[in-house]
Amino acid sequence: MFYKDYTKEQLKEEFEKLTKELEEIKNLKLSLNMSRGVPCQEQLELSRSMLDIINSSVQCQTIDGQDCRNYGIMDGIPSCKALMAQMMSVSPDMVMVGGNSSLNMMFDTIATFMTTPVVEGEKPWYEVKNRKFLCPVPGYDRHFGITEYFGFEMITVPMTENGPDMDIVEELVKDDSVKGIWCVPKYSNPQGITYSDETVKRLAQLKPAAKDFRIMWDNAYVIHDLTEEEVSLLNIFEECKKADNIDLPIQFCSTSKITFPGSGVAAMAASSNNMKVIKNKYKFQTIGFDKINMLRHVRFFKDFDGMKAHMKKHRAILKPRFDMVVENIKNNIEEYGIITYLEPKGGYFVSVDVMEGTAKRVVALCKEAGVILTGAGATYPYSNDPKDSNIRIAPTAPSVADLSKAMYVFSVCCKYAAVEKLLNTNA
Amino acid sequence: MFYKDYTKEQLKEEFEKLTKELEEIKNLKLSLNMSRGVPCQEQLELSRSMLDIINSSVQCQTIDGQDCRNYGIMDGIPSCKALMAQMMSVSPDMVMVGGNSSLNMMFDTIATFMTTPVVEGEKPWYEVKNRKFLCPVPGYDRHFGITEYFGFEMITVPMTENGPDMDIVEELVKDDSVKGIWCVPKYSNPQGITYSDETVKRLAQLKPAAKDFRIMWDNAYVIHDLTEEEVSLLNIFEECKKADNIDLPIQFCSTSKITFPGSGVAAMAASSNNMKVIKNKYKFQTIGFDKINMLRHVRFFKDFDGMKAHMKKHRAILKPRFDMVVENIKNNIEEYGIITYLEPKGGYFVSVDVMEGTAKRVVALCKEAGVILTGAGATYPYSNDPKDSNIRIAPTAPSVADLSKAMYVFSVCCKYAAVEKLLNTNA
Repeated sequence: MFYKDYTKEQLKEEFEKLTKELEEIKNLKLSLNMSRGVPCQEQLELSRSMLDIINSSVQCQTIDGQDCRNYGIMDGIPSCKALMAQMMSVSPDMVMVGGNSSLNMMFDTIATFMTTPVVEGEKPWYEVKNRKFLCPVPGYDRHFGITEYFGFEMITVPMTENGPDMDIVEELVKDDSVKGIWCVPKYSNPQGITYSDETVKRLAQLKPAAKDFRIMWDNAYVIHDLTEEEVSLLNIFEECKKADNIDLPIQFCSTSKITFPGSGVAAMAASSNNMKVIKNKYKFQTIGFDKINMLRHVRFFKDFDGMKAHMKKHRAILKPRFDMVVENIKNNIEEYGIITYLEPKGGYFVSVDVMEGTAKRVVALCKEAGVILTGAGATYPYSNDPKDSNIRIAPTAPSVADLSKAMYVFSVCCKYAAVEKLLNTNA
Repeated sequence: MFYKDYTKEQLKEEFEKLTKELEEIKNLKLSLNMSRGVPCQEQLELSRSMLDIINSSVQCQTIDGQDCRNYGIMDGIPSCKALMAQMMSVSPDMVMVGGNSSLNMMFDTIATFMTTPVVEGEKPWYEVKNRKFLCPVPGYDRHFGITEYFGFEMITVPMTENGPDMDIVEELVKDDSVKGIWCVPKYSNPQGITYSDETVKRLAQLKPAAKDFRIMWDNAYVIHDLTEEEVSLLNIFEECKKADNIDLPIQFCSTSKITFPGSGVAAMAASSNNMKVIKNKYKFQTIGFDKINMLRHVRFFKDFDGMKAHMKKHRAILKPRFDMVVENIKNNIEEYGIITYLEPKGGYFVSVDVMEGTAKRVVALCKEAGVILTGAGATYPYSNDPKDSNIRIAPTAPSVADLSKAMYVFSVCCKYAAVEKLLNTNA
């Protein structure tokens, strides 16, 4: 029975029961963390042998004979460009390989356009005093952080099960102070939604008022499947080409959640017009990124098939964790009508909406009970979830046993906060 | 006898002789490069065993138990901060360790201040339309590139044998649109000059009109001695502290010319006020740089003494190269009164001034004869050497045998260009 259909007496009784359960949990003095999308130890171990690939007995030359240990090759070694190009489904000449962080490349891209126009004749974004950026919500807090740092007003766009609500996006881009949109098109952070073909086509066909409007296409989970299905995503560049809009998207990806989060390889892909502006900045910024690490990755995977085979090992580790989260929601919370969620087919999170007005309370209660969740509201710009209902669960780092405990705590806290709210509302 | 004292007849005779020599050289079809400060293969080999340090059988924990393979630790692992702090003669809490490139950190620092004031209440530099930067000349082309990219007017300051001419610097900083100065304080690029105690003190005591004036202290060659002397440099932070000016300098260094140029570790050091602004940017820019590579470096060197011992091996490789350059100048060019130079005690270059108005010609002649030099003028902002006389020789990459050939070519070209010019002037 749904809590909203409980009588006041039933709610009081339930609250007493939940209060006791919460007390018992607190006595366990747990210390569990489901707050960030961090790979677990077993996942790190999958790439341990990569550390042997480049050693003192191997040569470190690129396929065209350049020494990876020395200076140079600003946009990445050819073999690594080719590998990252396959990952992003683009041609290698569209690719630039960077350091260890795609977030860094995204930050640098926005930073570049702040002071240098991406389209000749347009104002650098610094000079657009009312500059705005579209932020599908719920979304990735670190994306929002970048545009907040650079003084953009962030306009939220609700996510549907097919991606950002395109009716709203098409309306908003009529404002020429709207300069871009953040997208995690596959297995979105946090909901795990993959943009439908229609959504990708409509994005590719956008005719924004701002000539320098850009789609930040963060393909962070491009091969991060949790099921056999390998959900497909339309190729944004191909769709943009058809729409004569090739300069619209800039794609990003990395191996952070494939090899090592701290020591992976990041890359970006864009049209030649965009790349001209971006590389003209990088050539002043660096002589080149870490080519030994690029070589290490290429030789470890051998090719893209090798990388995909590696991802199956990740899946085997992650699937039971996601199942534990989803089953716990299904078995312990759903029946009370206080939670909605999507079962993700990939990515790193389970996004849930708890009873409106209780998300902050749930996170606080969990914390008191020894379970750290991502701060409520983190999935919204300015950490402001107007309904106070979205919570991002990150199931990758804890063990399945710990997740079982943590999700039990979470279920009790969800119920406690809901009943507490209903009692206060009815009082 | 100096060429300037030659009679016209003697000059003509010399020119004929040099023309023949140049023809003979061209017939050799040489292909030699003395253009960039790139370590040679033997130097790269010194760090080959570093590639074995982190392998699949070692643990990758920091001293406080964090896994270097995973996300986090935005400002660098403690042990690497400590090592880089020793290198920069500062306390570890002043240090942030970055990626593989100190140039990248310098670029990012200027980029940060373009849009975010380093001193609260001051304008971001983007808004200072007539922003200026002081550039000691001859200097490092990539420094000048950064400030040119960001639209600074670059004001040249002549180098003396004690560092930048401080009388001029002290005058120029009275203009509040002058926002900083580029410095390579030890074994400067390209002259190999180490700033005198007086120069460092006067820099530390500057009272610039701009509250947000910053000294970009690029300590690229801090332990890169070519002699037993280990020339000493006053500690800029200590001097600034005495002068109540601790926010003035920002120091940079890297292991690019210690381990691998493409895969070293870079770091910066600054006061807490400066670091607050800088880290508040980095926390949006990245989750953390490559910690495995930091760990690799720390374990390879063990401590700062290990790093210094390693530098002696570099010295043994580099000293004969620098000697070859200097001896060649002494034996083959100096007697004609057409060259001045300083014999460097460290760093990566030999800077020479050839006869005024002939540097471009010398570089062009050398190129025709198969020897690539750094473009004439590259050591000046906008590549504009008003006297057209400075040439930067980079002796590290070629073998001693190749250097011998290249310097012979250089000597013939210097003489040819000088005699040619004298003949034209007298015509």
